[in-house]
Amino acid sequence: MIQSVHVVGSGRAGRTLAARLLDVGLDVREGRRVADVDLVLLCVPDTAIAEVASGIPVGPWVAHVSGATRLSALDPHRRRFSVHPLQTLTLSRGPEQLDGAWAAISADTSDGLAHARWLVARLGLHHFELADEDRTLYHAAAVIGGNFVVTLHAVATRLLAAAGAPPEAIVPLMRRTIENEFELTGPIARGDWTTVDAHIAALEERAPDVVALYRALAEATRR
Amino acid sequence: MIQSVHVVGSGRAGRTLAARLLDVGLDVREGRRVADVDLVLLCVPDTAIAEVASGIPVGPWVAHVSGATRLSALDPHRRRFSVHPLQTLTLSRGPEQLDGAWAAISADTSDGLAHARWLVARLGLHHFELADEDRTLYHAAAVIGGNFVVTLHAVATRLLAAAGAPPEAIVPLMRRTIENEFELTGPIARGDWTTVDAHIAALEERAPDVVALYRALAEATRR
Repeated sequence: MIQSVHVVGSGRAGRTLAARLLDVGLDVREGRRVADVDLVLLCVPDTAIAEVASGIPVGPWVAHVSGATRLSALDPHRRRFSVHPLQTLTLSRGPEQLDGAWAAISADTSDGLAHARWLVARLGLHHFELADEDRTLYHAAAVIGGNFVVTLHAVATRLLAAAGAPPEAIVPLMRRTIENEFELTGPIARGDWTTVDAHIAALEERAPDVVALYRALAEATRR
Repeated sequence: MIQSVHVVGSGRAGRTLAARLLDVGLDVREGRRVADVDLVLLCVPDTAIAEVASGIPVGPWVAHVSGATRLSALDPHRRRFSVHPLQTLTLSRGPEQLDGAWAAISADTSDGLAHARWLVARLGLHHFELADEDRTLYHAAAVIGGNFVVTLHAVATRLLAAAGAPPEAIVPLMRRTIENEFELTGPIARGDWTTVDAHIAALEERAPDVVALYRALAEATRR
């Protein structure tokens, strides 16, 4: 069905997806001038999607790879869909960083969904269908499970340093927490609120800006 | 120096540490009656440490493995120290779960520190010294970097389910976030506060109890 793909955007997503599509034998084009392809894949910042889409002559399939952006941003194109890889991508890895990851696919026609399924299969991603009206909630979940792990690491390493401990000591614990399938251990699992209160008192003295965050997380953990 | 160790407590920590000490050829004893050993290792709940310690006749070295508990809980023993493995332990793994992890060691004498260093070497743990007055801050860091990863996973999977997405889809993202050395990607890294505001609006409608947590994490991430 699709043999040529123009990938617009050469950031983390653009480079990774273009490399994988080349690997699987598609005719991949890049650069600013879009012409005469079967699919245009927009890997541009969310805020640029609508403008770039509106500048492409109607005809080819047009898709975006944003988690947060609705399909209507691809107007006036009707042959459209979206594929959002639920993965953090880095320029220091190649297309293999897609392996094992999932993608949310959305479309407003069955033909669009079929094209989205075709694309995730080429990319090597697992997939699930996401309703356009659920995408903001879905994207919030992605930020919580992904970006906020970075935040926990930043806060924990800062407190370790303040306690005179090596920041890298937290990493084996974070890895194993995932490997142990998120089994909760520690004071909250034991119902030890005396220790939790002691943490809050120590934070109030040594890192007062962390208190609200710690309280919100402890409360969510208790629930 | 130390040849026989009595491990008190048969929970996650007690079983894991006893298994490792047996593996490295020590004379390991367990059970309630403590007698005639070189070291008593208390692997009991934090709230039980003081009571169990006070019931042991003065003589052998006495140590605890708690992150939150001060050395004074080991009174009246003066030959004392603590070793806290900074790792989440599970009964479904063996002593190999200590490999690669760090431990905080504390003592109030140089002889105590030497014994703590000896023990972490037998256990196969990296180590750092922790001042007794820093241990509450240190332990808060451990909870933030460990337990709260469980919390992020729980919240993210709940929101994914509400959006009709498979909960397991978040796991490759969480793993890779650590493997990518906590490189921040996503809307906050791009300074895209429009998307963050949209997340908050979606959470207010679909998961209002998550709003305060999301705000606290987004604010900490921005900093």
